[in-house]
Amino acid sequence: MIRIAVLGCGRIGVMHAANIASHPRAGLAGVFDIHAPAAAGVAAKTGARVFASAEAVFASDEVDAVLIATATDTHADLIEMAVAAGKPVLCEKPTDLSLERVNRCATVIAGTKVPVQLGFVRRFDPGHAAVRKAIAAGEIGELHQVVITSRDPAMPPPAYAAVSGGILRDMTIHDLDMARFILGEEVAEVFATGSRLVDPALMEKLGDYDTVAVVLTTASGKQAVITNSRQAVYGYDQRVEALGTRGMALSENRRAHAMTLHTAGFTDRAEPLLDFFIERYREAFDAEIAAFVEAVEAGQPPVVGFEDGRMALVLAEAALKSIAEGRVVRVEEMV
Amino acid sequence: MIRIAVLGCGRIGVMHAANIASHPRAGLAGVFDIHAPAAAGVAAKTGARVFASAEAVFASDEVDAVLIATATDTHADLIEMAVAAGKPVLCEKPTDLSLERVNRCATVIAGTKVPVQLGFVRRFDPGHAAVRKAIAAGEIGELHQVVITSRDPAMPPPAYAAVSGGILRDMTIHDLDMARFILGEEVAEVFATGSRLVDPALMEKLGDYDTVAVVLTTASGKQAVITNSRQAVYGYDQRVEALGTRGMALSENRRAHAMTLHTAGFTDRAEPLLDFFIERYREAFDAEIAAFVEAVEAGQPPVVGFEDGRMALVLAEAALKSIAEGRVVRVEEMV
Amino acid sequence: MIRIAVLGCGRIGVMHAANIASHPRAGLAGVFDIHAPAAAGVAAKTGARVFASAEAVFASDEVDAVLIATATDTHADLIEMAVAAGKPVLCEKPTDLSLERVNRCATVIAGTKVPVQLGFVRRFDPGHAAVRKAIAAGEIGELHQVVITSRDPAMPPPAYAAVSGGILRDMTIHDLDMARFILGEEVAEVFATGSRLVDPALMEKLGDYDTVAVVLTTASGKQAVITNSRQAVYGYDQRVEALGTRGMALSENRRAHAMTLHTAGFTDRAEPLLDFFIERYREAFDAEIAAFVEAVEAGQPPVVGFEDGRMALVLAEAALKSIAEGRVVRVEEMV
Amino acid sequence: MIRIAVLGCGRIGVMHAANIASHPRAGLAGVFDIHAPAAAGVAAKTGARVFASAEAVFASDEVDAVLIATATDTHADLIEMAVAAGKPVLCEKPTDLSLERVNRCATVIAGTKVPVQLGFVRRFDPGHAAVRKAIAAGEIGELHQVVITSRDPAMPPPAYAAVSGGILRDMTIHDLDMARFILGEEVAEVFATGSRLVDPALMEKLGDYDTVAVVLTTASGKQAVITNSRQAVYGYDQRVEALGTRGMALSENRRAHAMTLHTAGFTDRAEPLLDFFIERYREAFDAEIAAFVEAVEAGQPPVVGFEDGRMALVLAEAALKSIAEGRVVRVEEMV
Repeated sequence: MIRIAVLGCGRIGVMHAANIASHPRAGLAGVFDIHAPAAAGVAAKTGARVFASAEAVFASDEVDAVLIATATDTHADLIEMAVAAGKPVLCEKPTDLSLERVNRCATVIAGTKVPVQLGFVRRFDPGHAAVRKAIAAGEIGELHQVVITSRDPAMPPPAYAAVSGGILRDMTIHDLDMARFILGEEVAEVFATGSRLVDPALMEKLGDYDTVAVVLTTASGKQAVITNSRQAVYGYDQRVEALGTRGMALSENRRAHAMTLHTAGFTDRAEPLLDFFIERYREAFDAEIAAFVEAVEAGQPPVVGFEDGRMALVLAEAALKSIAEGRVVRVEEMV
Repeated sequence: MIRIAVLGCGRIGVMHAANIASHPRAGLAGVFDIHAPAAAGVAAKTGARVFASAEAVFASDEVDAVLIATATDTHADLIEMAVAAGKPVLCEKPTDLSLERVNRCATVIAGTKVPVQLGFVRRFDPGHAAVRKAIAAGEIGELHQVVITSRDPAMPPPAYAAVSGGILRDMTIHDLDMARFILGEEVAEVFATGSRLVDPALMEKLGDYDTVAVVLTTASGKQAVITNSRQAVYGYDQRVEALGTRGMALSENRRAHAMTLHTAGFTDRAEPLLDFFIERYREAFDAEIAAFVEAVEAGQPPVVGFEDGRMALVLAEAALKSIAEGRVVRVEEMV
Repeated sequence: MIRIAVLGCGRIGVMHAANIASHPRAGLAGVFDIHAPAAAGVAAKTGARVFASAEAVFASDEVDAVLIATATDTHADLIEMAVAAGKPVLCEKPTDLSLERVNRCATVIAGTKVPVQLGFVRRFDPGHAAVRKAIAAGEIGELHQVVITSRDPAMPPPAYAAVSGGILRDMTIHDLDMARFILGEEVAEVFATGSRLVDPALMEKLGDYDTVAVVLTTASGKQAVITNSRQAVYGYDQRVEALGTRGMALSENRRAHAMTLHTAGFTDRAEPLLDFFIERYREAFDAEIAAFVEAVEAGQPPVVGFEDGRMALVLAEAALKSIAEGRVVRVEEMV
Repeated sequence: MIRIAVLGCGRIGVMHAANIASHPRAGLAGVFDIHAPAAAGVAAKTGARVFASAEAVFASDEVDAVLIATATDTHADLIEMAVAAGKPVLCEKPTDLSLERVNRCATVIAGTKVPVQLGFVRRFDPGHAAVRKAIAAGEIGELHQVVITSRDPAMPPPAYAAVSGGILRDMTIHDLDMARFILGEEVAEVFATGSRLVDPALMEKLGDYDTVAVVLTTASGKQAVITNSRQAVYGYDQRVEALGTRGMALSENRRAHAMTLHTAGFTDRAEPLLDFFIERYREAFDAEIAAFVEAVEAGQPPVVGFEDGRMALVLAEAALKSIAEGRVVRVEEMV
């Protein structure tokens, strides 16, 4: 039984706590939140212990591993503390909004055998993972082109947008990791363009974008194209497509159920897409915990680790530079 | 070049005339209609010769074969004349509304080598034919169950309904033939039920039904289920499904194009179904002519012949008897 | 908090116990199984109390309601005991294999205010329920025709088949209830046919069928058609279709994910269907518990009650009579 | 009756000749090909007159309009001759591989009232056109993002590739026009990247690419993304997607029929995509002729004209420059 403590009891932390509790070989070792009532709320529902501080979590003999779902700017500190304490850690993305901070954290934890897993949950989505498996099994031959569609149903609240690090570091970063996951080789060049179409005033004010297209190229010439929007009113649009010499694998959107309506004027009218990430990636969040438990049990590196989080941020920074300069940015420029 | 004359220049005859003209190895030998202006209209568009009578068609050296698209009550006479004249014939369904008349016609033409093809056009539909081919290729193993959905977009005009012979002889007959085509063995037992839901007053007056379910069983126990309705406001609903020991083949509906709309409240909203039979079975009508041309060229029996037309009518009569008596009717009772 | 005890700790009981435990306003009051280790296993995992007997459950102050997932032949006795003890009950289908026993049970519990819910879980499936809601909202107008496809992936083990009561009472009974649910009015007439195609020797031995078609008609002429098979190798095929004057609602099959493969020779190749009922009806089993909790909280009759279970069995018996006699059976004959 | 002469009797010219012949208000005025047997072949099948030269076509009183389907390097000359002769012209794309030549042609024909239609047939595809109509009708609100997938089933023959002008001028040019058609406003900036993955040796030799991604941006920030490949073994992949503030319109691929196979291991296996452009865009080629006939009848500018052809080539040149220089190219740089 792997006893996992959850740091951060916001919406995502609460969800993770429930998933940990329902895993057959894991248990909820306790919770912590700087906002005490949030932790108390989870404790009341689950019977889990409330820790008084992060330090108390890392010091506890009753904690085998930690899940970090706190504010982004605490992630790197907590990862360092967890590694120092020898506690395997599953940390929500992004590692940090500052590449410099992430690089420093990388130096601090360099060489550790403590498993550090990054929360790129989409890698665990059954459909997206099946694309990767189809490639690995040779079902589409040599990979040539990846197309990732990733659109939020609506703009996040302005307060969130202001601290999110911008769409590239907050939203596209998932797709950049997905591109690396599907491509199976490192990205060499990045091009991106950003527009302000959904909420031009807010985006202008924040220096952010709400509509983005990214083109990634590997050294061997494989291409990945990402389209992002902050406004897909038909639901959370999440598709991954891979073209190879022998075919195409396509992970399509999902709906809550499969009832369709056919009447005068139209056929096949289906439900909106599953909305939002907690619903859409429900199985993926479960599988993410399961993969973490397995990594901890085996004392092995997790399938998606700290360096994956760092590389996704490198690509996000490269994309921002590309937008700013209107040119292809080589990833080696970012190092 | 097979020179084919078209008898009957209504909507279906006109369509067949155009299909014959566009076939690479067939030509339109001429047209005839008891309503002279109808024939003249086709002639004006196509340059085809107008015959003064059916007799003139059968006597002509410039006619290699005939297509009969006249009123149903003339079909059997014209088939007999065609066979007597040694002209291969493609006759629209049904052969006749009277099984007794069809049986007499069968006796008259018994033993002839002249190809007589019945217009069960749906056998030539690429999708439905692909179901049959999948079965023949063993892709679904041993066939167990067939489900045929066949619904008209709307009630026919009352005048047509009055002379159509009723839904079983007019509409279901196509599905009864499809069942025989897919089953690949003869039907032994028939159950049917009919309701008056779309236009109860008219149906009551005509002694007809607008909503029908039929269950067919072969001697070996294979089942075919047909559902019919005269009112599918979303378009002409035409599906064929075959279940076997190794899988299922399903011929789905078709739309004019594949644009779908996704907006707040729904996704995947597609076009109505292709409506009506001339549009839905466009490729099938072409393939039907092609099969006739091949049968005539080869001097071989057509793939769907006179006896298929007769058996479909036998099943329609059995279904009517089943509705009347509330019981399973054995096909051998009808002989 | 509604404290629910689970009687019967087989596969389904274990699943229900977990669903009860995860319901926010329900708790697992304890478990009982005549095979003690089965109950002990559930207790070990959940921390739930083990009751020594059914009587102990019904006598307990710590039990607000019971879920019956024991062998079918104990259902009626346990329902009677639960009602006598004033404990609301959710009982797995079927109530009993004997209509006579069900009728006696109905007499015993007649007039009770204790909620008795029958486990027709499919009514709670989001897709099937959406068909019902579309009808209730008038989206397809007046209902005319219902088509229910219901096929198991494979034959049950022979030992199960032998005690199941046969396909009509074991499998079709779900579809008969679904037909009643969708039709929204009582069935007046039943026709059924059964074949032995999947495992003819076993079916012959058991006097059972593996391939069934049923046609139901209401007094107003609405039709429902059910097709059943014990062998759909592509997965658990569960579809519900409703045709009305203004359109069609169709609850389609579901897959574990939406990855499709497109390669030389084919496109759109998707996963097999969700297999088997615990996976396919996962949301429905959750919603079933939720509905039961609401009925208990409100002290109201459940949405699917004892009489629904009885009527489904009446229709199953009518279908068996129809197969035996080759004729339409009027439901009033069964009373 | 508009009498149209066809210049160029290769595969596409022959198809156009048949489509002209079957249009109810157009006729085939005659054919010309520098390879006389090609013209003779069409004449034999259609009864159409053979012209001895292009000059003879333009001089003929019996020719109301011309369709140019000759080699690309003759298009501009023939357009100039047609305009000089006052004959409306429908010219296959591209106008020329040299932007300079196209610009000269533009100068020569400047101010003419003679309808000059460019053969961007995809604008007439029912599905793609329905996307445009949905936008025009406000069904998806303000347009934000367009995604065009366009992949050939296989590399063209090397001999064709060598004279095609390269993938950008030969294949992408269709998608560049489609982007302009869907965007409804002019492109301001172009980014493109090209890879050599399908046939690296040949592409290297020709200085061409087989795998391309293009990002277009309008002045208002609307984005269009194009992905091209010369190898989609599952068929000719042709999709157009438009995202707006109120939803998404998606024109999906088409198959020859809608039979799907479901067996152990998979479901929904469908036919390969329609392959190749003559089959996929059959309705579009018909509609293109119909639009031309209407433009000629009305003496109005066609819906897709010479300037559309020129602008698509401008964008192709900009994309080539972008690939060469690894940067965004502003369209105004190309003028």
